Amino acid sequence: MERAEPFHAINYRDGVYAEEETSIVREIPLAIFVCGREIISLLTIPDDLENLAVGFLYLEGLIQGIDEVRSIEFDEAGGVINVDMIHGELVAEFLDRKRTITSGCGKGTTFHNVLETFSFLRISPGPVLEPDRIFALFRSLNERSLLWRETRCVHNVALCDEQELLVFREDIGRHNALDKICGECLRAGIEPADKVIVTTGRVTSEIVIKVGRMGIPIILSRSSPSNQALALADRAGITVVGRLRSGKFTVFTHPERIAGAGERTQ
Amino acid sequence: MERAEPFHAINYRDGVYAEEETSIVREIPLAIFVCGREIISLLTIPDDLENLAVGFLYLEGLIQGIDEVRSIEFDEAGGVINVDMIHGELVAEFLDRKRTITSGCGKGTTFHNVLETFSFLRISPGPVLEPDRIFALFRSLNERSLLWRETRCVHNVALCDEQELLVFREDIGRHNALDKICGECLRAGIEPADKVIVTTGRVTSEIVIKVGRMGIPIILSRSSPSNQALALADRAGITVVGRLRSGKFTVFTHPERIAGAGERTQ
Repeated sequence: MERAEPFHAINYRDGVYAEEETSIVREIPLAIFVCGREIISLLTIPDDLENLAVGFLYLEGLIQGIDEVRSIEFDEAGGVINVDMIHGELVAEFLDRKRTITSGCGKGTTFHNVLETFSFLRISPGPVLEPDRIFALFRSLNERSLLWRETRCVHNVALCDEQELLVFREDIGRHNALDKICGECLRAGIEPADKVIVTTGRVTSEIVIKVGRMGIPIILSRSSPSNQALALADRAGITVVGRLRSGKFTVFTHPERIAGAGERTQ
Repeated sequence: MERAEPFHAINYRDGVYAEEETSIVREIPLAIFVCGREIISLLTIPDDLENLAVGFLYLEGLIQGIDEVRSIEFDEAGGVINVDMIHGELVAEFLDRKRTITSGCGKGTTFHNVLETFSFLRISPGPVLEPDRIFALFRSLNERSLLWRETRCVHNVALCDEQELLVFREDIGRHNALDKICGECLRAGIEPADKVIVTTGRVTSEIVIKVGRMGIPIILSRSSPSNQALALADRAGITVVGRLRSGKFTVFTHPERIAGAGERTQ
C-alpha cells in the first residue's frame, strides 16, 4: 500500500494562483488486537505495521521479548492487526480493567507505571560521539527523508551506530516511528543498547521513556526537549542533544558521551 | 506556575563549546476526573488547564455544552482536575466499559464515533479570506509565539476573525492547544462557528474532527495535511489551507472561501 497519494490543490505564490499536483501522506487507523480483543487504535501511515504493533507492545511493557509473540496477523482490508501472544488473554483483560492514558503530541499511551520502571533501567556507557559524527548522522537522516520531502507531514527517526543509519522509519507520529524501530530490532535481532537515536521530533517525556526502555544511551534531535524529558534522561543516564542544525547543537544531559563537551562540566 | 524554566546546557557551534543558559518548556501530567473517576491523563504545559479539561470533554462529545458543567476544581499539587457535570457518573462508567483510543502525533483519544458525528456537522459559509488577510493572521500568530521562541517545544494555535487573533493558545500538543481554545470559547461565550483556526501544526484527521466539531469553516496551517484530514474536511465542507509561508500557501479543500482561488476550479 502506497504511503503517499497525489492530490490536486491550488497554489498561491506572490499574487498568482496555479493548479498544483502535489502529494499528501496516507493516514490510516490501525486497531491492535491481542488474542482477539482490541487494546488500542493508532493513527499511522500504511507501512511496517507488524513492527509497529510489536514495538508498541514491548515499549508499553506488555511483552518482555519477541519470544512471547506466537503470531502476528494483519488484515489489511479491516485495518486490524491481531497479535497472538503468551499471557495475551490476561493482558487484554487487565487492560480492560485498568488503563492510564497519557497523551502529549504523540501516541502517548502508557499502560505501565513509568517512574517505577525507570528506576530499574540499566543504560550502558555507549559510544562517545565526535561533533562531526553527530552532523554526519543528522545529514544521513535528512537524506533518507524522501516521504517528508514529498508530503511534509511525517517525522523521521533512525537507529544508528557511530558510522551509519541502521534502521530508518517515518510516521505521522514520532512515537509510532520509534515503536517501528523497536519492533524491527526485536524481530531482526538488532541490539539497540549501544546505539544512538536520531530524530526530527521534539523530545518529550514519552520519547525518553521509550528510548530508555530500549536501553539506548543517546538521543540526537533537531528539536527541543521538555523539562520532564530532561529530568527522566538525567536520572536514567541518557544523553540528550537537541536543537541540532548544520554546525551547531545543544547538549542538555550527560555530556560525557559527546567528545569535548564533558570537560566543560564538573 | 511558570510555563518555562531555565536550564544550564552546553552549546556547540563551529568547533567551540560554551556554557549556555537556555529555557525549556514545562511538561506536566494532568489527570482529568469526571465526578471523582479518572477518565484520562494528558501531558500538557501548566497553563489554562480548566479550559483544557472543558474543551477536551466537549470535543470528545462527553458534554454538549458548558451548561452541563456544574463545577471545575483544580488541585495543582496533585495535578488533578475534577469536573462535576450532569450525567458525569454515567459518562465515567460508560468510558470504563468501552473505550476506543485513536492516536496519531497528538492527543488522539476519541471516545465517540467520529464518522457518524461528522455526517451531522453543519459548517457555516463563513468568511471569504483575501490572501493578504491570510498572511496577516499568520504573522500575528508568529508574533505571539513567545513561548515557542523561548523553548522551541510548543505548537501555537489561534482562533481568529478576519481582522485579528481572538484566542491564542500554546501547548506541547497541537490537540491540547485546540482543546484550550474550545474551552475558552465555551466558557467566555465566544461563537467559533464563523471564525478561522490558524496553527503551526500538521493537519491530521484528529485536528479536522476537533475543528469540525467546533463548527469552524477554515483551517490555516504552516504545515501539511494528511489524506484522511482532507477527506473529512472535504466531506464536512471545511477549507484547509496548508504549507503557509511568507508570500505563499496551498489550498487543499473548499477554495470558495479563499478569494481568487475558487474561480480556478470547477
